[in-house]
This record gives sequence, C-alpha cells and structure tokens, in this order.
Amino acid sequence: MDAKLLEQLLHDVERGRVSVSEALERLRTLPFENLGFACVDHHRHLRQGFPEVVFAEGKSLDQVKGILTSLWAASARILVTRLAPDHAEALGQDFPEACYYPASRSLTLSRGEIPDQGRGLIIVISAGTSDIPVAEEAAVTARIMGNRVETVYDCGVAGLHRLLAHQQLFRKATVFIVVAGMEGALPSVVGGMVDRPVIAVPTSVGYGASFGGLAALLAMLNSCANGVAVVNIDNGFGAGHLAALINRKD
Amino acid sequence: MDAKLLEQLLHDVERGRVSVSEALERLRTLPFENLGFACVDHHRHLRQGFPEVVFAEGKSLDQVKGILTSLWAASARILVTRLAPDHAEALGQDFPEACYYPASRSLTLSRGEIPDQGRGLIIVISAGTSDIPVAEEAAVTARIMGNRVETVYDCGVAGLHRLLAHQQLFRKATVFIVVAGMEGALPSVVGGMVDRPVIAVPTSVGYGASFGGLAALLAMLNSCANGVAVVNIDNGFGAGHLAALINRKD
Amino acid sequence: MDAKLLEQLLHDVERGRVSVSEALERLRTLPFENLGFACVDHHRHLRQGFPEVVFAEGKSLDQVKGILTSLWAASARILVTRLAPDHAEALGQDFPEACYYPASRSLTLSRGEIPDQGRGLIIVISAGTSDIPVAEEAAVTARIMGNRVETVYDCGVAGLHRLLAHQQLFRKATVFIVVAGMEGALPSVVGGMVDRPVIAVPTSVGYGASFGGLAALLAMLNSCANGVAVVNIDNGFGAGHLAALINRKD
Amino acid sequence: MDAKLLEQLLHDVERGRVSVSEALERLRTLPFENLGFACVDHHRHLRQGFPEVVFAEGKSLDQVKGILTSLWAASARILVTRLAPDHAEALGQDFPEACYYPASRSLTLSRGEIPDQGRGLIIVISAGTSDIPVAEEAAVTARIMGNRVETVYDCGVAGLHRLLAHQQLFRKATVFIVVAGMEGALPSVVGGMVDRPVIAVPTSVGYGASFGGLAALLAMLNSCANGVAVVNIDNGFGAGHLAALINRKD
Amino acid sequence: MDAKLLEQLLHDVERGRVSVSEALERLRTLPFENLGFACVDHHRHLRQGFPEVVFAEGKSLDQVKGILTSLWAASARILVTRLAPDHAEALGQDFPEACYYPASRSLTLSRGEIPDQGRGLIIVISAGTSDIPVAEEAAVTARIMGNRVETVYDCGVAGLHRLLAHQQLFRKATVFIVVAGMEGALPSVVGGMVDRPVIAVPTSVGYGASFGGLAALLAMLNSCANGVAVVNIDNGFGAGHLAALINRKD
Amino acid sequence: MDAKLLEQLLHDVERGRVSVSEALERLRTLPFENLGFACVDHHRHLRQGFPEVVFAEGKSLDQVKGILTSLWAASARILVTRLAPDHAEALGQDFPEACYYPASRSLTLSRGEIPDQGRGLIIVISAGTSDIPVAEEAAVTARIMGNRVETVYDCGVAGLHRLLAHQQLFRKATVFIVVAGMEGALPSVVGGMVDRPVIAVPTSVGYGASFGGLAALLAMLNSCANGVAVVNIDNGFGAGHLAALINRKD
Amino acid sequence: MDAKLLEQLLHDVERGRVSVSEALERLRTLPFENLGFACVDHHRHLRQGFPEVVFAEGKSLDQVKGILTSLWAASARILVTRLAPDHAEALGQDFPEACYYPASRSLTLSRGEIPDQGRGLIIVISAGTSDIPVAEEAAVTARIMGNRVETVYDCGVAGLHRLLAHQQLFRKATVFIVVAGMEGALPSVVGGMVDRPVIAVPTSVGYGASFGGLAALLAMLNSCANGVAVVNIDNGFGAGHLAALINRKD
Amino acid sequence: MDAKLLEQLLHDVERGRVSVSEALERLRTLPFENLGFACVDHHRHLRQGFPEVVFAEGKSLDQVKGILTSLWAASARILVTRLAPDHAEALGQDFPEACYYPASRSLTLSRGEIPDQGRGLIIVISAGTSDIPVAEEAAVTARIMGNRVETVYDCGVAGLHRLLAHQQLFRKATVFIVVAGMEGALPSVVGGMVDRPVIAVPTSVGYGASFGGLAALLAMLNSCANGVAVVNIDNGFGAGHLAALINRKD
Repeated sequence: MDAKLLEQLLHDVERGRVSVSEALERLRTLPFENLGFACVDHHRHLRQGFPEVVFAEGKSLDQVKGILTSLWAASARILVTRLAPDHAEALGQDFPEACYYPASRSLTLSRGEIPDQGRGLIIVISAGTSDIPVAEEAAVTARIMGNRVETVYDCGVAGLHRLLAHQQLFRKATVFIVVAGMEGALPSVVGGMVDRPVIAVPTSVGYGASFGGLAALLAMLNSCANGVAVVNIDNGFGAGHLAALINRKD
Repeated sequence: MDAKLLEQLLHDVERGRVSVSEALERLRTLPFENLGFACVDHHRHLRQGFPEVVFAEGKSLDQVKGILTSLWAASARILVTRLAPDHAEALGQDFPEACYYPASRSLTLSRGEIPDQGRGLIIVISAGTSDIPVAEEAAVTARIMGNRVETVYDCGVAGLHRLLAHQQLFRKATVFIVVAGMEGALPSVVGGMVDRPVIAVPTSVGYGASFGGLAALLAMLNSCANGVAVVNIDNGFGAGHLAALINRKD
Repeated sequence: MDAKLLEQLLHDVERGRVSVSEALERLRTLPFENLGFACVDHHRHLRQGFPEVVFAEGKSLDQVKGILTSLWAASARILVTRLAPDHAEALGQDFPEACYYPASRSLTLSRGEIPDQGRGLIIVISAGTSDIPVAEEAAVTARIMGNRVETVYDCGVAGLHRLLAHQQLFRKATVFIVVAGMEGALPSVVGGMVDRPVIAVPTSVGYGASFGGLAALLAMLNSCANGVAVVNIDNGFGAGHLAALINRKD
Repeated sequence: MDAKLLEQLLHDVERGRVSVSEALERLRTLPFENLGFACVDHHRHLRQGFPEVVFAEGKSLDQVKGILTSLWAASARILVTRLAPDHAEALGQDFPEACYYPASRSLTLSRGEIPDQGRGLIIVISAGTSDIPVAEEAAVTARIMGNRVETVYDCGVAGLHRLLAHQQLFRKATVFIVVAGMEGALPSVVGGMVDRPVIAVPTSVGYGASFGGLAALLAMLNSCANGVAVVNIDNGFGAGHLAALINRKD
Repeated sequence: MDAKLLEQLLHDVERGRVSVSEALERLRTLPFENLGFACVDHHRHLRQGFPEVVFAEGKSLDQVKGILTSLWAASARILVTRLAPDHAEALGQDFPEACYYPASRSLTLSRGEIPDQGRGLIIVISAGTSDIPVAEEAAVTARIMGNRVETVYDCGVAGLHRLLAHQQLFRKATVFIVVAGMEGALPSVVGGMVDRPVIAVPTSVGYGASFGGLAALLAMLNSCANGVAVVNIDNGFGAGHLAALINRKD
Repeated sequence: MDAKLLEQLLHDVERGRVSVSEALERLRTLPFENLGFACVDHHRHLRQGFPEVVFAEGKSLDQVKGILTSLWAASARILVTRLAPDHAEALGQDFPEACYYPASRSLTLSRGEIPDQGRGLIIVISAGTSDIPVAEEAAVTARIMGNRVETVYDCGVAGLHRLLAHQQLFRKATVFIVVAGMEGALPSVVGGMVDRPVIAVPTSVGYGASFGGLAALLAMLNSCANGVAVVNIDNGFGAGHLAALINRKD
Repeated sequence: MDAKLLEQLLHDVERGRVSVSEALERLRTLPFENLGFACVDHHRHLRQGFPEVVFAEGKSLDQVKGILTSLWAASARILVTRLAPDHAEALGQDFPEACYYPASRSLTLSRGEIPDQGRGLIIVISAGTSDIPVAEEAAVTARIMGNRVETVYDCGVAGLHRLLAHQQLFRKATVFIVVAGMEGALPSVVGGMVDRPVIAVPTSVGYGASFGGLAALLAMLNSCANGVAVVNIDNGFGAGHLAALINRKD
Repeated sequence: MDAKLLEQLLHDVERGRVSVSEALERLRTLPFENLGFACVDHHRHLRQGFPEVVFAEGKSLDQVKGILTSLWAASARILVTRLAPDHAEALGQDFPEACYYPASRSLTLSRGEIPDQGRGLIIVISAGTSDIPVAEEAAVTARIMGNRVETVYDCGVAGLHRLLAHQQLFRKATVFIVVAGMEGALPSVVGGMVDRPVIAVPTSVGYGASFGGLAALLAMLNSCANGVAVVNIDNGFGAGHLAALINRKD
C-alpha cells in the first residue's frame, strides 16, 4: 500500500465506503515500508546537498559508469572512492565535470561550486608519507561534503617540532582527523594539544607486529588523551564523513 | 626562566647590559617549559569552565579526599569517576556540595548551576540494562561539562520497536552516544537512523566469545553506517567528554 | 497516538471533521511506536505459551523476587537461568510452584502441565561430566518451552562406543544439541551420524590452550559435518531456545 | 567379512558345521565395517533424494568431470560448489542438464523437477551487495535439496526501512538464513523480528578490523536475539544445508 | 541385545527356530553397543595394569572419596591429579596405601610394587623452579604407569652449562619430557642434543606477553629441532602418559 | 685445537715438554668446539643411517642441485622436502637414483634398499583428501628413515564407519600419525581407539574461522584423548621424523 | 671430574701412569660441566659486583628468608623484587642492612656504598602515575647495579610540555628507560627527542582494549622512532638490568 | 620568525625601537618552530656523521633516485634499505660510490672511509640461513654508522656446539644483535652466555603456528635471560641502529 492507496483508503472512509474498524485493521497490517519508510527516512531530506558515495573497489569500469550515470541524473555531488587511475581516466571522457585525486584514488563530480556548509575548519594531520592516501581520502570526502579542510602531513611523533610548529593553525579548527600507522601515537599527542574532537584513523602502514594496522588501532583506542574516537583501519572516507557531521552548521 | 626572568633579560638588552648575541644564546637554550609551556598550553584557558576529573579506581579514600580538597580550592566543577559507594558516602561529609550517582559510580562537585555550554542536545542510548552504568558515566560526564543530556535505555536491536519509538526525539540531538555490549550492533542501527555523529561505546557486557567486549568493539569499528566512531571498551567518561567537545558552542 | 487515537482520527475522517490530506499528514508523522509497535510485535502472540526468561546472574535476591512477582502475575511459565542455590531456596518459599534444577542452576515456574508443543524429540548430548551444567540448561530451557527432551551425557569422542550405543535413540530425534568443551569434536561426530540439525554448544571447560572455550568454538565452526551450527560459549539457554524454535509445530 | 560371509556363517551354524561358541567368537572379532557399516550408515537411506555435493575449489576440470560422471550415474541430483565459470562452461557440454549460477559459482544437475520436500519457506537475507555470492550459495543449496526459497538482499541494518518493509513476507518462513559481513548485526535484528530459527552466516566482506570476517562472526555469536546460531565464515553451503534439515518434512 | 542374547540367537539358528535371513536381519539392526562395544573396546585389555586416573580439581572431598572407593575395589593402581593437600590428608586416613606428592599435588594408590613396564628410561627436564609442579605431575604419572623416571630440574636455556652437564645421563633415555614456561626454548635445545622423542610441555609460568603460556606453546610448536611434539599448557599428566606409551615394551 | 692437537698436547705433557699447569690452562681456554663439539655431537653416530634432509622451498634449482651433489657424496640416503615438480624432473637427470613423490612434493635418494630400522608399524591417517599432501610427507619421511608405513586416508570424523573399519589394522601399529584440518577432531577419535602414541598434525586445510590451521591446532592441543601430542601446522616431515624416533629399535 | 681431577689426570699422563690415548678417551667423554662449565661461565667473574636477584612473588616468607640468608653470606649486594610489604617488614628484623622501596615493592641489601660502575646517567621516564611501580623497579634495579639514575614521572604524551620541559636533563643521559601503559606512545616521542638507546617498558595499566598491556607492547614494537627496543610487559627489572649493561664502563 | 628575525627583534629592543613588553608579547606568541625547533632539535648536531636513511620499499626508481640526488648533495653517508636489485643496478650508474649488498638488499653511499665511531665490537648472530637477510641489514646498518661488526650465522639452538664454538669471540663484543625466526630461542641462549646487551630481532621465517614471526616475537619478550630487548619482526635496520647507539663513544 503506497501513499496513493492510503489516500484512497482515507477517501473511502470519508465517503463511508470503508468502515473505521475495517480501515483500522488494514492500517495495522499494511506493509511497513509504505508508511514507515517515509517515517523512518524522513530525516533524509536534511541531508540534501550531501553527496552520493560510490565505493569503486571490486567494481568493473562498466559497473561504475552505470552507477554514475544513474546517480548523476539526480544528484548535485558524487564521491567515488578507491577508483583505479585507468578507470578514472576512462570516466573523465564521459563525465567532463569529474575531478580525480590520484593520491587518494578518489573522484568527485560536482555541479557548480560546493557551498561551505561547515561551522569551521577541519584539519587533517598524518604521521608518515605512507599515511597520506588515507588522509587524502578523508580530506576529499570532507571537502565534497562542503567543508573547508587543511592538511598537515609528515608529522610523526618522533619529530615533535614539526607538529608543534603548527600550533597556531590548530587553534582555528573545529575538528581534527589524525591519520597514523605503525605505533598510532599521533592522535594522543594531538589530542593533548587541542580541545576539539579528534577522529583517529589507524592505517595498515607498517610491518611485522603492526599486524595490518591492529597495533595502531589498539593504541588509538587506549589513548590517554581525552576527546579521541577511532574509525576502522584505513577508513579515510569514514573519518571525513564523520568530521563533516561534527562540523555541520545546525 | 619564567616570564619575569625573560622580561628582565629583555630589559637588560634594552639597557645594553646584555648583548644581543648573548641574549640570543640564552633564549635558544632556556628551558622549554618556561616559554614553551605558556605556548603549548595557551589553549588551556579556552577550557575554563571545564571540570577537573579524578579517576578514583585504585585510590584510597584518603588519596581521593586529598586530591579533592586541593582541586576544590581552585575549580568550580569536579568529576570523580569509578568511585566506590562507601567512599562516596564518606566524602559527602566533607564536601556537602557533592552529588553521587550510584548507577555510574560517579561523583560531581559544582559551585552553583552548571551553565549550558552546548549547541544542542546529547542523547545517550544503551542496549541492555547491564550497559547502563557505562551509559550513565557518559551522561554524568557530559552534564557536568555543561550539556543537556537525554538518556534512552534498554533499546537492544532485538527489539527494534523500542528504538523506533524514539525517532522524533532523535531528531533533536546534536550528537549521540550509543552504548552496547554483546554483538555491539546498536550504533550501526542508530547511525543509519540519524545524520549526526555517533560515538559508539563497546561494553564488556557478555560472556564467552564476547572476549571482554572485543566482539562489540570490532562490530562497532566495522559499522556499515556512516558517522560512527568508537572509544575504548567501557569508556563512558571518554564518550561523554568527546560528545561535549562536539557539542561545544564555538 | 495509540490505537484509540487512530480510531478517533478515522472517525473524524469518516465524519468529515478531518480532511483526507490532513489525516495523511498526521498518519505519516505519527510516532512509529503507536502503530509500528503493533506491527513489529504482531508476531508476538504466536509466541503465546512461550515462557518469560530471567537472567539471574548479577541480580540480587530482591531484584529477582521483584521481577518474578511481576512476571508471575501475567505469565503461565517462567524460566530463571544462572540462579544461585541459596537464592533458589529463598524464592521457593514465595513461589511454591518453583522447581529448581541445581545442575544447571535453573528455576522454572509453571501453572499446570507444560503442553507438548514440539514436532518431535530433542536430544541433548554432552562430552564430559563438566559439560553437564550447560547441557542441563539447554534441556531445562527446551522442556519449559514445551518439548520432549532426552539427555545422553559423558559421550566424549575418545570413547566412541558410548556414543555409538545410542544410535537407535538418535534416529528418533528432530534436533540435537551437542555440548562439548576441550577440543569440541563431538558435534562433528554426531553430525556425521544423523541427518538432523545439530546445535553445537562450546563450553569453557578445559585449560591452557582451550582459551576459555575458544578452541572448542573454532572446532565447531569448522566442522566437517554438514548440518552443524554454533551458539556462544556456555550458552545452554540459547541452544535450548533455538532447538525449541526448530522443533516448533507449525 | 561381508554380508555374504555372514550369511555363510549363519548357514554353517544352521547346518551344525560351526558351533555356536565358535560363531560367537568369529562375530565378536569380525571387522567392524562389514556389520557396523550397515549399522552406522543405516540412516543414510533417509537421505534418499538429497543431492550429492562436490566442492570444486582446487580441483582440475578433469577431476570435476570425472567425479560428476561417476556420481551422475547413481544420483538424481548433484550440487557443485565453488566452480569457476570456465569450468562450468566446459562441463555444460558434457552435462546438458547442468544449470550454472554465476553469482554463487554453483552448478546443479537434476533429473526432472526437484520435488518440494520442505515444511515451509526458507528466506535468505543479505546485508550488502558484496554478501550476495554467499547468500546465493545458500539459496541454491536449499533449492536443490527440495526447498522453496525466497531471497531478500541489500537489507543492511543502517537502512532499517528496507528490512521492515519485508515483515509480512517474514511471517511466512520456517527458517531464516541471514548473511552479513562487516559488523554482522543483521542476524540480531532479524532474530528480534521473527520467532523462527535464524542461521547466521558471517562473510569475509570488509577490511581492516573486520579481520577476514572475524568481527562479523563474533558479533553473531554474541547476538542478543534468541534463536540465532552461526556457521563458518562464507559458508553459504553449510547454511543452506542446515536450513534444509530444519525445514525437513518429517 | 547382549552377548547372551546373541548366543541365544545363534542357538536358535542352530536349532532351526530362526531362519538365516531373519537372523541376518536381526544382526544387522541390533544395537551397536552390544556387539560393537566389545569390538571397539577390545584393545582395552592391553591396558591392563595401567592405572585408573581421577582428575580431582573441582571435585569435593566426598566425590573424590566415593570415586576412589569404587575404583580401588577393581584396580591395582590409581592416580589422582590436582588434589588439594587437605583433601590428600583426609584421604590418607581412608586409604593407607595412598602416597601424596605435594609438589605436583598428585596422589597414587598402588597394591604392591609397580612392575617396570618400560623399555628404558624417561627423563623429565624442567627450565625453572616454577615449572617443577608440572614436571612432577609428568614424573609421577609415568612412574605409576610402570616406568623408570629421572628428573633434571632448573636447566633454563640461559644457563646452558647446567644442561650440558647432564649429557651423559641423556644418552640413557628412551624419551624426554621437557617442561618450560616463559620463552619455551628448552625443548628445542634438548631436541638438538638428543635423537629421542621429546615431549614438550609449555607451562603458564610467566607474565605479561607470556599470555598464560601461549608464548611458550608457540615457541615449542615452531621448534627448529626435529623430534619435538607438544601437549597442552600445564599438561604434565598428558606428557607423562604419552611418554609411558612411547616407552611401552611391546 | 682439534683432536690431533689435543693428542699432541698430551704427548707433550707425557714427555715433560709442557707442564701440567700450562696444559691445564690451555685445556681450560681452548675453543669449545674442538673438544666440546665431539662431546656435544657424540650421539650423532647413533644416527648413522638416518638420511640427510634438504628443505627445498625457496631454494633455486641450482642451489638444491649443489647441496644434493655435496651431500650425495657422503650420505647413503637423502630426503628433499617441498620440491617443485619441475625441479624434481630436472634433478632426475643428474641423480638417476632419485625418486619423486608428487603428492607430497618429496624426493628421496637412496643407495640400495632401505633397511627396516623400526620396532613396528607406523600408521598415517588423514581426515580429508586435501590433507593427503601433508600425510604423504609424513609417510615418505618415515619410510626413508627405515620404517614400515601404512596409510589410511579420507577417514574424517563425520564418517566414523570408515575409521572403524580399520580397527584391526590399527592394533598392529607402534605409533600413529593423524593428519587433519578443519575442526581437527580426528586425533582425539583415534587416540580413544588405540593405546599407542598419536602424533597429531594440524593442516591449514579449511577457510574462514579455521584461521590457517589454528582451529585444528587448538583442538588437537585440547584433545580429550590421552597419548596425543601435536606438531606444527602442515609439518608432515616433523611428524614422520618423530614417529621414526618413537619407532626406533633401541 | 673437576679441575682437581683434571690436574690429577694430567699428572698421571706426565708420570706415565696413564697413556695418552687413554687420557684422550677420558677427556673426550668427561662430563661437560667440569671443563665446559668453567668455559661457559668464565665471563661470570666479569659480573663481580653485580647483585644477586631474588624474585619473591609466590615465595613464602620463610623461603625468601632462607634464600637471603644463603646469598647474603656470599654476596655484597642483593636485590629482591616483587616483595610484599609485610614480608619486607619481617625481613628487616633479620637483615638490618635491608632497604625496602614500597613503590616498587623491591628490597635491596648492600654492604657499604654501591660504587658507581656506569659510564653515565640512566633516566627513567614514566607516562602516568599508575606506571610508577614499574618505573621504580627499573630505577631500583639500575641503582643497585651501580648506576646513577634520575626519574621523570607523569609525562604522558597528552601533555607534551611536561616532557619538553626536561629536554636539557635528557641530554645528560646515556640510556633511557621509558615506561608507559595505555597507548604506549611515550617511547616513540622520547626516541624522537634523543639519540640514545631507549628501552621501552609496556605496562598492564589500562582497561578494555589495552588487553593487559598488549596495546602498549604492540605500539612500542612499531615505534616510528629509531633506537627503541622493548622488554616484556611490566618488566621493570629487565629494563633496569639491560640499562645497566648498556651503561657499563668497559 | 627565524633566528634572523629574533636577532632583529633583540636589536630593536636594544635600540629602543621595540618596548620590552611588546617584545615579550611577540616572543610569547611567535611560531613555536622558529625558536622551539632549534631547541627541540638542538641535539641533532650530535648526530653529525650519522647517515641519512631511505626506506626504498614501495618507492619507484625515479623517486629513490630523486631522494638520493638531493641527500647526496648534503650528506657524507647514506643508507638505502629494502632496495630491489634492478633498482640498485640502475642507481649504480648515477652513483658510482654506491655499494649494494644483495643479501640484505641494502645500498650504501659514502664519501671516503667510514671512521670508527664505536666503543667496541658489535656481533650479529643469526639462527638459520633464512634469517640472514635480516641479520645482514642489521650489520650493514651498524657498519655505515661507523661500527666494527662481526657476523656469526647458522647457529640455531638445535646445534649448540656451533654457538659454543664462538665463545671466545663473544667476549670481545660490546653489544649483540641476535636474529631468529621459528621458536626465537637464540637470544635467550646468547643472553645466558654473555653479560652484554642483546638486541633480539624476530623474523617472519617459519610457517604455520609461527604466525608471521609472532611466535618468535613472544618468545623473545619472555626471555628468561637478562639483558635482552626486542625490536619489531624483521627489523634488521632498527636493531643495527640501536646497536650503534649503544656502542657510541660518548
């Protein structure tokens, strides 16, 4: 029973064709989705302006192209993550608005300027150069969602002066994304320097006892600094998305 | 060398008693703390109004009393976490302003009303009744930090209707804290219902293959919902603190 | 808006006091619970006759007594799991219908005979004597849910003849619950002997590299026999409940 | 000593050529298999009509073809799992009855219609699109074993309305197979909506802290919903087989 | 159908009261145990002279006493493992033949001398003093099973000279039991010194990253020396039993 | 200082050319190896007749050929494990005595017949067909070390009758090697059937929660049967070697 | 055969009472220890002045007293670790030279001043107040081994200024011991500030996902700073001992 | 504000162009790096003469070439680790001073002789031939940092005599690097033979339950020998670097 049918039912009640008790019965057992869907998903329109997201890993070029074609007809902004460079190049011919970011293997599609929808600045900090792809995915995600983003890379805790040099910049941020592999200590150090939310992103950078990012993940969960929360290993997109939610103008 | 000494040094330069090169040398090697401390910790005053926090677990009653006496002389608000009920009762005689929350074993001290310092509402949701102590610690923490908090308990994913019944309330929140043990699925479900940051708190509730909260922790890190980040197992305080940072009026 | 209010709304439509479009709007945004609750929970009445369950571990005697008093007013059958013997004794004075099973630390309350609600026989098999408490919890659970249950204990795989001796009995069962700690091999062996569902329950029985039941759990998940599924370590109740669902007369 | 020899022995006893005590001795020590085999395997004929199963992974095309040729001479129905598409194509030429299901990489061989051997309906639900191959393997397995199967895909817990929309369908099922990777929450949610057995299948879908399906596996074992049991990661075949056993007409 | 019934059946065949085909049918379906039990367990008599074993941990004094009373009526030798000293003392009054070994918390009961049933000497080596209880359990077990045993304790790999000093003794052994916690290196070193089977027993001795004996267990499984096999953590009894099997005179 | 030099030194003492105290000093500080080597390695000659072993994995054809050429000049028997088929073929041209076993990827070189050096029979049992390569490596190893070996394959615990059919054969063995992946239950079942040493070999056969053989390994370490010890995952060679040591004629 | 016997043997050779070949034979087979011991342990005297160490955990007061009495007769310095306060008090009456350190539960015995045997200064840094017991154990160990030690506590990475304030002190050290629980980041930060060896000591301080110090341990093993090595969780003694070896005057 | 600007500021103060209070203000808020950098990094010049290090894994030939060109202009010595042989060959044409070490896949660049900067000798010991690449990386690292290094390979604990033969050499060393995979026992044995720091390097050599080096890592962390610390799995560079720091002339 979709909205039309519901409307019809109410008309039938109005006109006396269906009794109240029968209508009650039919309402009680109607498929949840038709009524409930609207209900559950009502908040969706709040997200207007948020981009659609396509996870390209494991999808063929044709599949990605098909999805993009369909989404692009209805959306103003699209983010494609984990897209291979050769796929990006091929897509560029069909979607001239496409912008590819090789460092994070992300592609964005946007009609016109992306309006600034954030309360303030999002700062993305990464520990080593190998962490940059994840950090860039976070940055691209936050930007396509309408946020100002600054990136500060190569600030591992073994060279504190590089980190400390950015203290004044750090005071301008609303939320931090801190990306680190290996020992995963950077979010704790940043968390101790600022009084803003810190989203920690462990990366699978490392070898041996890093166990694919587990060492960094555990370190971040046990951070002695307050205000730190953690997303999945290598989940730059998730961190960028969460930062955008935190930075939302209400 | 504190600020006074630095001022003296500059006066000496001004008066020609110390040469520029000598001053340079002394500045270069002066203890970091005296100058740097101010620098590093400059943002601290932004936190004015934030409570001091005492982790009482493993501390004797005398230790806690000593710390509280010292802090209470200088702070307007204090939060004590993991405080045993008998200690709380004993402290109540020395600190008439103390308010003890047995569910979370937290105690707060506050002079006067806690001003509302948040942008909006923080909602704390918990899955089972055994998760309530952790949820309450989060709620007490967020409240003493100047936030309005609503709690919605006993909303496990095996009884969705209880969760869905709160949908309208959920639209009013700025940030969510979702507390769950066992399979840790609740943050994913809540994350799919709202477009606000969700701080997931795994608890050690469960047995067998819950491995002390590890199952819930992993589930939350792998959430299929966007906007979810995770803190340590049973870390209600950390979640409340982070929620307060996210909810900060700028 | 509960059912009454919904009825009122429909009457108002019937009588023309509320327009169809206004009714549509109000229906679309009414709290999910009021309508949805009935919807979601509709299947509940199918469970009529199923017992209420109280997990007593960690609850005080007074708490258990209070819950039981409240439930007993509305339910025909109640199962209390993980109940300490002294609590059971105390409860026996208030609830003369109570029946305590010390082996599994379970207590049941039932008005009159439990009707047989199952299609066939549930057989509970355990490997060692230390596994019996978990096996008994499964058996008590299945019985209070209206099933015939036979138990076959002390049938570890290192003494196959004891197991093989029960082959004829095994042909009578609809579903098996197989409980084992240590190497957890018994469900695989049983699974190879029967063509009925086997619910495997790992127990924390063992030491050293059993890692609290992990060894048995992994063995059961990797069973080379078909028709085996696994519940949590020591989860006798869960196995008994699932067996009852499988054995349900439709 | 096979059945012939046993018959001979009894004839010898009958004719007085072998004394009872000698016969007893010979019976007691005869190879187990000859008598015991029949005994142990007696229940096999109950499985008549169940298909033979070939696990093709790691087997050469020639090996699979040889096995199929041999089995097809004696069986009415065969299921081949994990079969590469090019092998399937090659086999299609030798076995015109072969039907290949690319999504699950399964192939079935069946003479004539598969009779409906189940009590009711099996519903297979999957969380994400990446979980579909495992879900399809479960569905194909259950179907070739003589069951009606419905599939409901792409119902992750982050979009509850999609799941809730199928509530009426869910009331028709005898048993559920719920397939999910990442946080593995779906079986708990489904388990809370239905009062039928739920077979949970964790998949290796995910990355980072999913640890190849471990996160989903642990979540499912710790499900707060009753009536949920778990099979090995990616074990669609096992889930389908178990569902068929549960759905068996007695 | 027990042996009597089988004899009866054969007599009936002999006397023509039961036809061969009917007898065949009854034999084919008779309960496995009656015939098969004898069959499966036939090898048991080979073990004559092997002691009965009682695992006392978790059993009450009365339970142990009851079991011992029952076993002692039928067995010449009994081994009780993990028996608390106060239980041992109490049992000593009822069983004057009892001999308690406090170091391993083992008790043995034996009528008369234990005959030497081994081919040669079993040597038990332990790394640290904390490993001695496990080593002693192995030694007591092997002795009560009729073996000559020598023990060489406190031979950790960090003091090789202590180990090397025993080289001539080592040449006399048929099998070695090597007990070690912490890094578990001793079996590898011993394995390199001898060309006899080495049974490695990891102990839970250690702290921190020993993870309850896991470190030692993994080290022993990865031994670079040939001829080393491993039993469960702290399983001195298992090692002693296996050594006795290896040392068996044929 | 080798044996010659030592002899010289003693002659010098005998002849008065070197004083006792000087000789003492030289003996005390002489390189350990020269004297100690003989001492430590004295038992080596007991191993005469044991083959040299070459682990070919990761070695180039030229490397293997070089090692074989060198060893073959001095040894009567050589075992090469983990040798690729193409390497085996190439080596066959240089070493006409070479015998390659494709199932286990092992190659043996032997001058003349291998004398029977064992006390009795070694039986190698494997659970599934995928476990055969590991089982064969064990068998080839034991045979080249001078043992009679029988193999019994495809005896998984889900089909007990196949295992039980071999009971009479099992009574002839001195030691068992039991190879199994997945749930690793077979050694426990065999261990319960025999009173001989059982060497359990977990294999990496399986998927998902088998975690590369960890599930089987843990199951075997926790075996409820006595007389079972475990070697590393897939370590067929180690099991064969250990079985040969156990089977040694003294 | 001890040195005396060896001397006797040589005299016998010198005097012609024992032939060279007989002497050779006896030398070749003499117990390793008598000659080898001296050899292996020769470097022991280099350690003169190093204290004897007693690990008191799990030992009775009488045991500790007995060991101390025996050692104190022969040693100038003794270190007792993990000694309970009441045992320490009791020992104080028998050993007036005893000095107990409650923070680390260590006791030292020393005759006269401990000479400075180190090249330079050892600095012990700890992250949180809960890490102090482990840090103190390291400090007491290093001091009793003749080293100058400075301690810098409560320098967690979330408050960098406290750490940076000690930079000038840090330049004076030869080796660092850095003790931290939770996320274990401190050694990486210190390692980046100094160019001296850093011994990292993870502690079991923390909860939840710290897994008893595993998180800190992994973080330290994955340190992005050079010059960091790790000892076992809570192993303050080991760190102090190693630091003393590094600081040794040659 | 760099040093020049600071000098300018002081001159301005000296000349009265800037007041003391204004200077104070500017000093207090100047970017940390400009002053702090010098401060934090002051100790850097102590490292003069230490080589620059390039981690080549994952870098293209062009990237490595670019980095080398830039570094070589400013540094006297460079170490490149994990460099593929073909890259090494190509680089050899541009950098005639380059020296490639295929065993460890390391390349060094050095102008003139490397001066001996160490106090004594560094000995690198490895267990098996497969551990040599990691051992060689440690040796090359220590040598380019100005240390004398001896290597002793193929000294696994299963052949002690090979290790013991080097005892006299061992007395000459200042620090040991001990590299081992599999059971990781070698550092414990070496640690018991010497009274010098032992840096233990676990390698990923092994299979099955070695879990990529985890077994060796745990064994080394639990070493019963004193004076052993551990670096990450396969981290030869880290061990060499740390050994150089320990061996530093002060």
